[in-house]
Amino acid sequence: MKFTDKLLNSSRKNKSWLCIGLDPDPELMPGVDVLQFNKSIIDATCDLVCAYKPNLAFYEALGTEGLTVLEKTIKHIPGDIPVIADAKRGDIGNTARAYARALFSVLSFDAATVNPYLGYDSIEPFINYQDKGVFILCRTSNKGAADFQDLRTDGLPLYEIVADKAREWNIHGNIGLVVGATYPEELKKVRSMCPEMPLLIPGIGAQGGDLASAVGYGGDARGEKAIINVSRQILYASNGKDFAQAARNVAEKIRNQINEYRRTAR
Amino acid sequence: MKFTDKLLNSSRKNKSWLCIGLDPDPELMPGVDVLQFNKSIIDATCDLVCAYKPNLAFYEALGTEGLTVLEKTIKHIPGDIPVIADAKRGDIGNTARAYARALFSVLSFDAATVNPYLGYDSIEPFINYQDKGVFILCRTSNKGAADFQDLRTDGLPLYEIVADKAREWNIHGNIGLVVGATYPEELKKVRSMCPEMPLLIPGIGAQGGDLASAVGYGGDARGEKAIINVSRQILYASNGKDFAQAARNVAEKIRNQINEYRRTAR
Repeated sequence: MKFTDKLLNSSRKNKSWLCIGLDPDPELMPGVDVLQFNKSIIDATCDLVCAYKPNLAFYEALGTEGLTVLEKTIKHIPGDIPVIADAKRGDIGNTARAYARALFSVLSFDAATVNPYLGYDSIEPFINYQDKGVFILCRTSNKGAADFQDLRTDGLPLYEIVADKAREWNIHGNIGLVVGATYPEELKKVRSMCPEMPLLIPGIGAQGGDLASAVGYGGDARGEKAIINVSRQILYASNGKDFAQAARNVAEKIRNQINEYRRTAR
Repeated sequence: MKFTDKLLNSSRKNKSWLCIGLDPDPELMPGVDVLQFNKSIIDATCDLVCAYKPNLAFYEALGTEGLTVLEKTIKHIPGDIPVIADAKRGDIGNTARAYARALFSVLSFDAATVNPYLGYDSIEPFINYQDKGVFILCRTSNKGAADFQDLRTDGLPLYEIVADKAREWNIHGNIGLVVGATYPEELKKVRSMCPEMPLLIPGIGAQGGDLASAVGYGGDARGEKAIINVSRQILYASNGKDFAQAARNVAEKIRNQINEYRRTAR
């Protein structure tokens, strides 16, 4: 099944644009095994989300066992919920092929984030997996995003040129974009440029992005294909034994708040 | 010891600017275990190089055992030769911290490549490891590099703006740049902008970069701090039982050729 169809199915079934970022940080976690932590979070929230998004950095930081934890985490996620590899990979052609193989064939992710700095041949090996989703970084949620992404060429900021190229490169219909909720005007602009693409929108919660405008600007014409990611605010809602229930409570609140904004956005 | 000192020591001791990219690709390798392949290449070439550079993609593509192979490969490299993680990571602050921890603390690399697209806060956690080297992608060696890296703002191409920022951010003196040998004029320009920084120069060999101009333009004022990376041309010089000796022969030839160009460049 194509990634976008899988996403629409889970999003409709769970009435949700919420994606939970599975970013286990031992310093913030309750005293529990990382795999058990992830499993508990998934069990407590899998009827509330449209997708999960593990960021590979947090697994790599765990050493060799991290990759095993990641594999088992992916396997624990119900098969009808898409899993997005937040990897932000970008390398020359033959190396990008190895990265795409690692994420899509070895780890069986449904989608991955990629960095556009190296241009088309760094992204092509990913989009060649036509059933997989490929989210190109466009306007990221962090403060440093402005350093290069806002530089203008012939009046257009770099992130708009990236959005434009992404549209041109979208020959298999499997490209999406990453646009931070911390920059609502940029999100609005990118959505107007790419009305059909799924948008992955981080920056809500710990990063301080505005949920109302993320929802107002993020959806496509049918009010779909927006993925709003929240990580720390949900994962670390409590660092006591009740962490999974606390995570569920926050996830449910955000899911419902998003749906409330979706209704008023229509 | 600071990365740059370690690099200068190995480069002087082995009279070499050559870095070998340890990128094991089972499709190109002789029928031998990956770890054994790497060990044989290292044993055959460690008196000829200034550094080794494993690209993480090729280890990730091997699945969970890949990371173990990578760890054991790093441990097998003589302690006085710097090891550069070609990872091209780039993510928001707290995630970049996890990546830096993974590469510098967990895997004990001496240096890493990073992607500038997310700006300063994505690079800061790396440069905060003051003894480690941080190579920011500037003008990459691939064809797609032109898609975004050549876009001009106020007359300056993006890669020059990146080089300029890298100089501004180099408060700990541990930043270097990646500039492909496939674009000699760009290499010349970047070296003139950043006369003191180590430059990591891929693109020789399989990618077709010109060695003479890479050497002519790559060194600093003392004729040092250039790292010329070659991967496939050395690793896969033979796919028979003589692969290690064949790799040594090619490595020695390139090392000597570089030194020949260094002499005439003076």
